[in-house]
Amino acid sequence: MTATNKQILLVQKPTDKLSVDHFKVTEGAKPSPADGDVLCRTLIISLDAANRAWMQGKTYRDEIGAGQVMAGGVLAEVIDSKDSKFSVGDFVEADGGWQEFFVKPANQLQKRPRHDPPTNLLSVLGVTGKTAYFGLLKIGDPKPGETVVVSAGAGAVGNVVGQIAKIKGARAVGIAGGAEKCAWLTDELGFDAAIDYREENLFQALKEKCPDGIDVYFDNVGGDILGAVLFRMNMHGRIACCGAVSQYDTGNPAPGPRGVPGLLVTKRLKMQGFIVMDYYNEIAKAEAELSGWVKSGQLKVVEDVLEGLESAPEGLVGLLAGKNRGKRMIHVADPST
Amino acid sequence: MTATNKQILLVQKPTDKLSVDHFKVTEGAKPSPADGDVLCRTLIISLDAANRAWMQGKTYRDEIGAGQVMAGGVLAEVIDSKDSKFSVGDFVEADGGWQEFFVKPANQLQKRPRHDPPTNLLSVLGVTGKTAYFGLLKIGDPKPGETVVVSAGAGAVGNVVGQIAKIKGARAVGIAGGAEKCAWLTDELGFDAAIDYREENLFQALKEKCPDGIDVYFDNVGGDILGAVLFRMNMHGRIACCGAVSQYDTGNPAPGPRGVPGLLVTKRLKMQGFIVMDYYNEIAKAEAELSGWVKSGQLKVVEDVLEGLESAPEGLVGLLAGKNRGKRMIHVADPST
Repeated sequence: MTATNKQILLVQKPTDKLSVDHFKVTEGAKPSPADGDVLCRTLIISLDAANRAWMQGKTYRDEIGAGQVMAGGVLAEVIDSKDSKFSVGDFVEADGGWQEFFVKPANQLQKRPRHDPPTNLLSVLGVTGKTAYFGLLKIGDPKPGETVVVSAGAGAVGNVVGQIAKIKGARAVGIAGGAEKCAWLTDELGFDAAIDYREENLFQALKEKCPDGIDVYFDNVGGDILGAVLFRMNMHGRIACCGAVSQYDTGNPAPGPRGVPGLLVTKRLKMQGFIVMDYYNEIAKAEAELSGWVKSGQLKVVEDVLEGLESAPEGLVGLLAGKNRGKRMIHVADPST
Repeated sequence: MTATNKQILLVQKPTDKLSVDHFKVTEGAKPSPADGDVLCRTLIISLDAANRAWMQGKTYRDEIGAGQVMAGGVLAEVIDSKDSKFSVGDFVEADGGWQEFFVKPANQLQKRPRHDPPTNLLSVLGVTGKTAYFGLLKIGDPKPGETVVVSAGAGAVGNVVGQIAKIKGARAVGIAGGAEKCAWLTDELGFDAAIDYREENLFQALKEKCPDGIDVYFDNVGGDILGAVLFRMNMHGRIACCGAVSQYDTGNPAPGPRGVPGLLVTKRLKMQGFIVMDYYNEIAKAEAELSGWVKSGQLKVVEDVLEGLESAPEGLVGLLAGKNRGKRMIHVADPST
């Protein structure tokens, strides 16, 4: 086995749009685990809009600094363990970063059951699927017949949100960029309607495609789309704030939507941010339910897997430009066993 | 008894700031009740920032049009009833408008127990007190030791919010305009700190006076103050959206706060709009609890009563400029019995 460790560094923090030039490939030394540490080999890297947000400042994790290995969630396999809780061959999830190997203290690893294909552990059974699950069901809480709108509807989280909305008997309307993605949402994934925000007038389209108003909005983007949706929300509507991808890849975030707080008051709306770990105690239940829907065919798994560590920078830049369909990941290595 | 009915009309809808010139005093005919109707004599008119919002468009009630009797909540006494549910001498609350007499169908009246002084029925035991009660306790849900910030802290609702926060063992910080109001909040009403938003740098003052961050924000104003508070909110903080008075008295509402939705996501904040009627089933309990706090001396009742129907326009204009302290009302007549 090689003694080197291919890594991708963030060489410079972007002041405006992220590009592949902000990264470089380098070779580090393969690390060795000390007592209590675990050596892991990266199998799959998760690409997320949050990767870009981490460059803007401290969020729920520290800011990523220039010159560091690019941070990122990964699925990895244990190849050497100095901690009794982990054994060679275990699958683990961690903030391993964009590199072939990493060492972490055992308490920074989350054990995952082995699963085939492993990618599912980062898509429908990963943070992505659970983000859709908890945000929609815990904050949105859609009732049968209600209208659920999701932005970035063809994205990793959004496609799952719409599908779960349908499972729960609600009407699902996706907002996505491009006619092709929109057709895919309705024809392949069973959304009731889709809106192409690049081509359609959003106010008009929301009126036409949500004739009974909007009861639940799952917001992945913030910005102007959030502003337009607020005007169509029904009384006592719920907005799950999952992200603000429209505001991440810029040095100059837009002002907030005009409807805040005025429309929240007059329509008695709830807006709430969340992350999966807020529902820590219900994660096992969520995974079981998601898994059941996949097995029964009610929930289609949509994965967008790019090959090789070197493809990560372009993969992330593309993700921020909306080029992915479903959960985008980087395949780095196969499990050894 | 006179057969005329003094009224105040909204002669013109304001396009920017409201002034007394938008109103005029007139004499109408004293109305007569048909079957199922009730004739009422106005005792006290409630002045509320919402009066101005109603001129901007449809909210939870219809927009007020030019040429109409100015709308407004009132406490009134029944003086003639053609409905079996109401008797002469009953106290009722209604959207009676700015006039001496009005007729309403019985189903648009809410019976109130007679109370001395009657003004309490519109202040601490009215929508004002219950707005503070439900918004703070149902949405804010402050825990002992947490920090509660309330804007328009010396206003009708705000002063009650801070006092209830103290009763619940939280730290109360009021934002108000002017050193005198601020001193009154801390010296007379027991707030732990107050911030004069006209004189102090809000970001700096919030940092100094909320050293442990903000857990609950009761927002009466929206705009820049909301934006500044968002930056000091703690993880899992709660924002009760009660009003946006900074945005009512203008023809050009400001954009929303930049932190929406970004800070909602990273701090997992909840923002929620509400009105008292959302908690319809708990109104009796709220009145009983508020009444108990008043009797025990834990909750001071702060009323700002102006004399005579003609003082209503200036009273409202002043309210929007922050001239009131506590609940502003207009005394029109005393109960006849």
